Amino acid sequence: MPSYIMGLVEVAERPGMISFATGLPDNSFFDTEGLRGSVDRVLSGDGACPALQYGATAGFRPLREKIAERCRSELGFEASADDVFMTNGSQECFDQLGRMFLNRGDTMAVENPGYLGALQSFSSYGPIFRAVEMTDDGPDGEMLSDSVESGAKMFYSIPNFQNPSGRSYSRSARLSVSKIIEGSGCLLVEDDAYGELGYNGRPGSTIKSMAPEDTVLLGSFSKTISPGMRVGWMVVPDWMKEVANRSIEAASLQSGSFSQRVIDDFLSNNDYEEYLSSLRRGYKHKKRIFLDAMEDRLPEAMRWNDPAGGMFIWLRSPDGTDAMKLFELALDKGLVTMPGRPFHIKGGENTVRLNFATPSAGEIEDGMKILGGVCRDLYCL
Amino acid sequence: MPSYIMGLVEVAERPGMISFATGLPDNSFFDTEGLRGSVDRVLSGDGACPALQYGATAGFRPLREKIAERCRSELGFEASADDVFMTNGSQECFDQLGRMFLNRGDTMAVENPGYLGALQSFSSYGPIFRAVEMTDDGPDGEMLSDSVESGAKMFYSIPNFQNPSGRSYSRSARLSVSKIIEGSGCLLVEDDAYGELGYNGRPGSTIKSMAPEDTVLLGSFSKTISPGMRVGWMVVPDWMKEVANRSIEAASLQSGSFSQRVIDDFLSNNDYEEYLSSLRRGYKHKKRIFLDAMEDRLPEAMRWNDPAGGMFIWLRSPDGTDAMKLFELALDKGLVTMPGRPFHIKGGENTVRLNFATPSAGEIEDGMKILGGVCRDLYCL
Repeated sequence: MPSYIMGLVEVAERPGMISFATGLPDNSFFDTEGLRGSVDRVLSGDGACPALQYGATAGFRPLREKIAERCRSELGFEASADDVFMTNGSQECFDQLGRMFLNRGDTMAVENPGYLGALQSFSSYGPIFRAVEMTDDGPDGEMLSDSVESGAKMFYSIPNFQNPSGRSYSRSARLSVSKIIEGSGCLLVEDDAYGELGYNGRPGSTIKSMAPEDTVLLGSFSKTISPGMRVGWMVVPDWMKEVANRSIEAASLQSGSFSQRVIDDFLSNNDYEEYLSSLRRGYKHKKRIFLDAMEDRLPEAMRWNDPAGGMFIWLRSPDGTDAMKLFELALDKGLVTMPGRPFHIKGGENTVRLNFATPSAGEIEDGMKILGGVCRDLYCL
Repeated sequence: MPSYIMGLVEVAERPGMISFATGLPDNSFFDTEGLRGSVDRVLSGDGACPALQYGATAGFRPLREKIAERCRSELGFEASADDVFMTNGSQECFDQLGRMFLNRGDTMAVENPGYLGALQSFSSYGPIFRAVEMTDDGPDGEMLSDSVESGAKMFYSIPNFQNPSGRSYSRSARLSVSKIIEGSGCLLVEDDAYGELGYNGRPGSTIKSMAPEDTVLLGSFSKTISPGMRVGWMVVPDWMKEVANRSIEAASLQSGSFSQRVIDDFLSNNDYEEYLSSLRRGYKHKKRIFLDAMEDRLPEAMRWNDPAGGMFIWLRSPDGTDAMKLFELALDKGLVTMPGRPFHIKGGENTVRLNFATPSAGEIEDGMKILGGVCRDLYCL
């Protein structure tokens, strides 16, 4: 698969470019001072040497305890520190799961559209992807059942504020997925990268809480604290612990002791609930600005959604049109968007993923002018 | 393969245990204050947001430039920042190379003994290992030639202060390996994890300098600055760049922006040569204490070497004896050693790897008393 995501990160970094393309958090939301305080405490206390030294493969135990506690209090399922394995960002989880469970030619069910970065990672292991169509409500139950019955080893899903579409599973879709998965032999990979960014709370219970033995839940501090720290994790069922430990050790020994201790200190010494509330308010506000600009600038022929969390809006050009043209024309004019086609196993030609989290208010205004002009040129003449 | 290394890390962390087992740097050699200064500069300057944000898959360019510069000045080969790919410790390089080049059933040549952590990582990809016997001079040329001729995809080697044996390739062995490898279709993986820790300089030129197109050179700051930062790299030939970039992106998007910027700042704002000299003096001194204690405490029947760098001494019990017993008895008495057998594809029953870098002078003294007692019990009655 071509390397879309990071390629666009690099294009977006060129001077003068406006980017609605990537999944980067807003730089101005980083709590740089808070993290500086944490680093200072970590490097001046008893934890300085262990923070710089090798540590346990599964990760720093106090941080794993905090994550387990949050699973119990916020995500609705029983977990202990022993169930939590820290990784080099949650991207590494995809790779670990592929390594543990996929053999070349195995079938794997994926959301259509689904998160491209995960598809790229799983594709290293040579699975055959089976597309499960996504509706506004969640995955098509019949297609998921068919895949599971035909022996799919895994189903990769983002029930909350999906990347790329910003959509969430309804409560009934969650229940229905849990029933299809439970005891089926198909592992549910529930990626909760955006779950903490629900502007009005979580859109529903985790499926992990409904089918705990059949689900691995993935989490990350990349969208909340810092992606550059590379601190992600997976919460695994009992039966997976030993193989997970061995797999992480083989791939990288461990993820960074230093970053984990810094984040653990940050959680200990800040009011994380208040921090998250402020982050959610910030992104909700940016989404409002972004949607207002869309309404002002985009022609009637375009359609889009209003997600209740996360970082993405899903834009559709008229049926039968090819949004890749929109992407190319916008790029010529200095705006980077993310075509929706690569997120699809099939279809999606008329879709675009827009990120409202990264650009500033001024960039949103300027970028939307470009996008509106391009849309009018393409679809309204 | 059982998970020896990290298992022993955990055992060694139990209160009261003395460890000669693991490959941990000496905690007291970390430049905690220097790193604190670097973190402070990184988080207070223009680089704060980029350090916390996603970055390029290949890594932070100024750091890659410094590594390339060191390749030119110290390692004797041409390299530019474009050739350098940052990874989550050099352990990730093994996994990346396995992913890129090994298919189940492929043959791969490995040093016998060789570094267990690498063998574990490569074994995820299902290769058939072909043992190349190691002498005090380097790998057996005929066995390496045979492996290469029979189609080995890679040869994994540590020419400088090898883990586990502390031995280095002679100059003629390096030349001979380069001649066998060059143009053969077999990729040389030259792991230079310990190259900077030569107490009297490097034991010889890099093989990468002799066969640049056929060699990937692996490096790491884990033995010099901090393993907990997880900053390793590989310097790849031109033809490998694109696939390396894609492979790293799939596995983890990138390694940590934050750690990379901290280390880059550390290199910019400290006299790295002086820092390394002091580190080398420190480890040389510890090796001396360790060897003195061995001479004082171990019976004549035991043999060992005097490595000119790195962190390890290679201990042999009498021919025909099983050093696993030594390991077990010592463990009972509170000393963790690392049996040599798991580092071998075949043989090695009477070998033990001892790390003189981790224990303090007092622990060396106490640990060697235990080891001496155990050796006498086992081999001298």
